[in-house]
Amino acid sequence: MITEQTRGVYVISATPFTESGAVDFESLDSLVEFYLEQGVHGITLLGMMGEAHKLTFDEASAVVRRAVARVAGRVPVVVGVSHSSLEVMSALARLAVDAGAGGVLVAPAAGLRTDDQTFAYYEAVAAALGPSIPWIYQDYPQSSAVYLSATLFARMVGAFPAMVMLKAEDCPGLGKITRIRAEAERTGARRVGILVGNGGLYFPQSLRRGADGVMTGFAYPDMLVQVYDRFVAGDADGAEDVYDRYLPLVCYEQQPGYGLAVRKEILRRRGAIRSAKVRVPGPSLTAADVADIDRLMARLALRLR
Amino acid sequence: MITEQTRGVYVISATPFTESGAVDFESLDSLVEFYLEQGVHGITLLGMMGEAHKLTFDEASAVVRRAVARVAGRVPVVVGVSHSSLEVMSALARLAVDAGAGGVLVAPAAGLRTDDQTFAYYEAVAAALGPSIPWIYQDYPQSSAVYLSATLFARMVGAFPAMVMLKAEDCPGLGKITRIRAEAERTGARRVGILVGNGGLYFPQSLRRGADGVMTGFAYPDMLVQVYDRFVAGDADGAEDVYDRYLPLVCYEQQPGYGLAVRKEILRRRGAIRSAKVRVPGPSLTAADVADIDRLMARLALRLR
Amino acid sequence: MITEQTRGVYVISATPFTESGAVDFESLDSLVEFYLEQGVHGITLLGMMGEAHKLTFDEASAVVRRAVARVAGRVPVVVGVSHSSLEVMSALARLAVDAGAGGVLVAPAAGLRTDDQTFAYYEAVAAALGPSIPWIYQDYPQSSAVYLSATLFARMVGAFPAMVMLKAEDCPGLGKITRIRAEAERTGARRVGILVGNGGLYFPQSLRRGADGVMTGFAYPDMLVQVYDRFVAGDADGAEDVYDRYLPLVCYEQQPGYGLAVRKEILRRRGAIRSAKVRVPGPSLTAADVADIDRLMARLALRLR
Amino acid sequence: MITEQTRGVYVISATPFTESGAVDFESLDSLVEFYLEQGVHGITLLGMMGEAHKLTFDEASAVVRRAVARVAGRVPVVVGVSHSSLEVMSALARLAVDAGAGGVLVAPAAGLRTDDQTFAYYEAVAAALGPSIPWIYQDYPQSSAVYLSATLFARMVGAFPAMVMLKAEDCPGLGKITRIRAEAERTGARRVGILVGNGGLYFPQSLRRGADGVMTGFAYPDMLVQVYDRFVAGDADGAEDVYDRYLPLVCYEQQPGYGLAVRKEILRRRGAIRSAKVRVPGPSLTAADVADIDRLMARLALRLR
Repeated sequence: MITEQTRGVYVISATPFTESGAVDFESLDSLVEFYLEQGVHGITLLGMMGEAHKLTFDEASAVVRRAVARVAGRVPVVVGVSHSSLEVMSALARLAVDAGAGGVLVAPAAGLRTDDQTFAYYEAVAAALGPSIPWIYQDYPQSSAVYLSATLFARMVGAFPAMVMLKAEDCPGLGKITRIRAEAERTGARRVGILVGNGGLYFPQSLRRGADGVMTGFAYPDMLVQVYDRFVAGDADGAEDVYDRYLPLVCYEQQPGYGLAVRKEILRRRGAIRSAKVRVPGPSLTAADVADIDRLMARLALRLR
Repeated sequence: MITEQTRGVYVISATPFTESGAVDFESLDSLVEFYLEQGVHGITLLGMMGEAHKLTFDEASAVVRRAVARVAGRVPVVVGVSHSSLEVMSALARLAVDAGAGGVLVAPAAGLRTDDQTFAYYEAVAAALGPSIPWIYQDYPQSSAVYLSATLFARMVGAFPAMVMLKAEDCPGLGKITRIRAEAERTGARRVGILVGNGGLYFPQSLRRGADGVMTGFAYPDMLVQVYDRFVAGDADGAEDVYDRYLPLVCYEQQPGYGLAVRKEILRRRGAIRSAKVRVPGPSLTAADVADIDRLMARLALRLR
Repeated sequence: MITEQTRGVYVISATPFTESGAVDFESLDSLVEFYLEQGVHGITLLGMMGEAHKLTFDEASAVVRRAVARVAGRVPVVVGVSHSSLEVMSALARLAVDAGAGGVLVAPAAGLRTDDQTFAYYEAVAAALGPSIPWIYQDYPQSSAVYLSATLFARMVGAFPAMVMLKAEDCPGLGKITRIRAEAERTGARRVGILVGNGGLYFPQSLRRGADGVMTGFAYPDMLVQVYDRFVAGDADGAEDVYDRYLPLVCYEQQPGYGLAVRKEILRRRGAIRSAKVRVPGPSLTAADVADIDRLMARLALRLR
Repeated sequence: MITEQTRGVYVISATPFTESGAVDFESLDSLVEFYLEQGVHGITLLGMMGEAHKLTFDEASAVVRRAVARVAGRVPVVVGVSHSSLEVMSALARLAVDAGAGGVLVAPAAGLRTDDQTFAYYEAVAAALGPSIPWIYQDYPQSSAVYLSATLFARMVGAFPAMVMLKAEDCPGLGKITRIRAEAERTGARRVGILVGNGGLYFPQSLRRGADGVMTGFAYPDMLVQVYDRFVAGDADGAEDVYDRYLPLVCYEQQPGYGLAVRKEILRRRGAIRSAKVRVPGPSLTAADVADIDRLMARLALRLR
C-alpha cells in the first residue's frame, strides 16, 4: 500500500489499443515490463492520459486486473478511479484494491467551485473509500477546473487520514508546493507525499520546492528516474543536466490535447507497445508531426552520445 | 424509428434511484407509465438530466432495455449515447436500437472548438452509426462548451442523411431556430425536426420560430402537451396562457445544476417515482427549498382551479 | 452614503448611446428621470449591463458626473468601478465619490480561483478604497468565473467594515442567501445588505430567503418597486401576483448576452431613452425578436388591464 | 507600415511601472533602447503581456506616443488595440497610426463562439479600421477563448486585404501553421505573415512549419534574433542549438499568469527597466521564485561560456 512516505517516479501508464480500438492486453503486458526496466518506483493505471474516461467500467476493470497481475508486486500500483458518480468511483476503487492495487487517485468532480464545495466532495469520497484505502488528491485544474489552495489542502490533510499524497499538476504550481511544505512545517501537521505531473515539466524546480518525485507518463521514464536518483543523492546540478537534455522532448510532448499521440508514438518506437492508436476523438499525428519527432529524437540521441 | 417528421413532446426521462443509489427499476416502470399518462409523444432515456454520465455501461444498458420493454412500442424511444469515446458511444447506440429504440441523441465531445472540428467529429459519428440509426444533434453548449452555428448545421444536414433532428438548447437560441428555418427555405435543403429543451423555457416563442416541439424533462409534461396541442390547433394565445401559468415552476426548475433535485422531488410528489435521490455529487434540497416548492405548487394549484 | 441598512430597488442604469455610438447624455438625463418616476430607491451606474467595460475612463467619468448631478441627491447613487487594474479601479472610485456617489460596486478580478485568492484581492481593494468609501461585493460568477461561498463571505464581512452589501447574482443562489443569513445569526456577525440581480429572476423567493431588495436593470423597475413594497408590507402573495404577471418579460429579457438589446428597446418604447443602440460587439434585434417583444408587451398590457 | 512580407523578431514590449504603479516613461525609453540593441526587427506595444488592459485610454495613448517617438523609425512599431468596444478600439488604432505606428494587433472580442461570429466581428473591425491601417489577427485562445481554424483564417485572408499577418499563439498550434500554408499554396491565395508567440516556445518547430518569425516578449530577445538569423541562413540545427540553451528559461517564463513577473525581473536585472512592478492584481515573486531565477540564469551563463 502507498503511504505518506511513498516517493520516486510513478509512471502514468498509457492504455494501449489495437488499431481497431480494442484494449491491447498483450501490449499492456509489454508496457508494464518496459516501465519496470526503466526503473520506475511505481505504476499508475487509468490516469487521464491513460484514456480512463474512454473505457467502459468493464474495460477499466480488466485493465486493472491484467496490469496488477503482470506487475506481480514488483512495485506498487496506483489506480485512477475518478468518475462523475461517487457510487461508480467507489466500486472501481474497491475492485482495484481487491485486485492488488496499493492506492487510488481521485480527481475532483466537475463543477466544484469553492473551498467548501471541494472539501464536502472529498468528505464524501473519504466516507465512500473508508479508512483502509489510501488515496491521492489529483490537482489538475487545467482539466478539472477545480482549484486547490494550500490552505484547503492543509484542511484536508487534517481531516482525511487516508489521503496520503498530492499529485500536483497545477500550473503555475511551484509556489503551491512551497506554501504546502511551509505551512505543514509551521503547524507540525502530517507531512504527505507530493508527486508532480505535467509530463515532467518543472521537475527539477519542483524537487527543490519539496516534491518527493513525479507521477507522469513522459515517454522517457528512465530520464525521470535518473533525475530523481541524482537529486536525492545530493547532485542537484547533475540532475538538472540530465533533465535539460530531454527538455525539448518534454516540451514537445506537453502540447495540450495532443501530447498523448506523441507519447504513444515514442512508446511504440521504443518497443513498449504495438500501436500508437488513441481512441476517438483524440489526437493523431500528421507527416509534419512525425518529422518533428524524428528530428527531436535524433537530436536527443546526439546529445546523449 | 424517428424521422425528420417526428414532433411533439419528447420527455427526457429521469433515472430513478433508490435511497442507497442503485437504479430503481420499479420506479423506472412507474415513471414510464406516468409519462405516457401525461400524453407525451415520445420518451428520451439517458439524457444529461437522466444522469447518464453517472451510470456504468452495464447500468445504462439495463435502463434502456427495461424502459423500452415497458414502453412496448406505445411511443418512440430515443436514447442518449454521448460518451467521451466514439467506440463506447457506438456500442451503446447499437445496443439501444437492438433493444427497440427509435433513434439516438449525440452531444458533441468535449474540446471541439471550431466548425471544422465539430463537423469532423460528427463525420466520425455518422460513420460509426451507419445509415440505419437515426440520430439527433444535441446542441447544449452550456454543458458541452461546443457551439453550433446555423451555417454549420446546414452543412451537417447536407452531409449526414441519418441526422434527422436538432435538440436545440443553446441560450439564447431563438435566433438560431429562425436562421436555420430561413436558410433551409432559401436553399431548399432537407427540413429536419427541431425540438427545444431547457426545461421548456421559451417554448411558446420557439414554436413561433419554427420548432416542432420540445424534448425536456420538466416535471409537468402534461403542460407541455397542452401547449403543443393548442399551438398546432392554431390557438397560439391559448397555448401561451397555459404556459404562463406554469412559468414560475419552469423558472424554478431551471436553476442550473440544481433543478434536477427539484424535478425529481416533484415527480416523487406526483407519484411517478419512489425517491428523489440524485447520485453524488448532485444537488439536494434544503428545508427552504422544499418550502419554495410547496409554495410554488400551491400557487399553481390555485391558478389551475 | 449607502450602509448596511440600504434596501429596496436599486436600478442598474443602462448607458444610452446615440445611433453612432457616442454616449447620449440627454438620454442619460431622461433615463434618470424615468427611473425616479418609477419609484426606485437608488440608481447604480456603470454596472455590467451598463456597458461599463465598453467605455473609456473619460467617458465613464463623464457619465458618473452627469448622472449624479441629475439625480441631485433624490436617491443614493452607486457606481460600478470594477477594472482589471486596481490602480484604475481606485481612481474611478475616488472620482465617483467626489462627484457625490454613495458607494461603489466591485466585481472580483478575472482569474481568482480559490477562497484565499479572492480574499487577498479584496484585501487590496479594501486598502485601496480606504475606510470612508462604502463598497459592495458583486457576486456574478456567470461573468466573472469567480465563486463566493457563504463561508468566505462571512470572513470578508468580519475583515472589511466598509463592505456593506452583497449584490447576489450567483445562480442557483437562493441557498447562498439562506446560508449567509443563518451563519450571521449563528455567530452574531454584522448583518450586511443583500440585493439580488439577474434581471429580477427569483426576486420573490430571494426576499423570503432574507434579501433586502434587488439591484438590476429590468426594464420595468416599477414592477420591482411594487413587489418590494407589497412584500415589506407583509403581503407576500400579493407581491408574487404582481411579479408573476411580468415573469414572461423577466424571462425574455434574461436571455444571456442578448437581454441588453431587449431591455434598451423596451426602455426606448417607454420613452426613457432615444435609441436602443448597444456598443459593438453587442446584441441587436431581428424582426422576429421585435415581434416577440410586441407580443409579450401586448400580453402584459392585457394582464394589467 | 507592416505588410505581408514583415518578418523576423517583433518583441512584445513590457510596460514599465514605478514601484507605486505609475507608468515609468523613462524606463520605457531605456527598454526601447535595450530591445533595439538586441537586434529586434520590430516592437509591439500594448500586447496582453504589456498589461494593456490595466491602462486607461489616456495612459495607453501616452505609452504609444512616447515609445514611437523613441523608436524614431528605426524599426516598425505595432500597437495592440484590442478592446471590448469596437468604438474604443478604433479610436486607439487611429491614434497609434497617427503617432507613427506601422500596424495594429486585434484580438477577438470575448464571447465569439462560431466561425460566423468571429468572421462577423472582424468584418466590423475591418470596416472600422478602413483600408489603410494594416492589422494582425491575434490568435491566443488561451486568453480569448475564441478559436480560429485554418479554414476560417483562409476565408478572412480572402475578405480582408488589410489583414497582413497572423500572430499565432494557439497551443497546440504547429498543425494550424502547416494547414494554413498548405491551404494557401493549394488555392494560390495571398500569403500573409505568421509570427508565433507563447514566449518563444516551439519557435524552431514553428519556423520549419512556415512561420516567418516570432512576436513575443521573452526576456532574451537576442536569443530569438540569433535563432531567426541562423534559421533563415539555412542553419536549422545551429538555430536549434542556440534555442535549446535558453529553453529552461523559456519554460520558466512561460508559466501561465506568472511569467510576466519573471520576465520583468529578468529585464530589470539586464538593466532594461528600473522596477519589475506589475499592476495589481498580478503575479509577484517569492524568495523561492527568485532563487529559481538566480539558478536558471547562472546555469545559462555556464552554458553560454
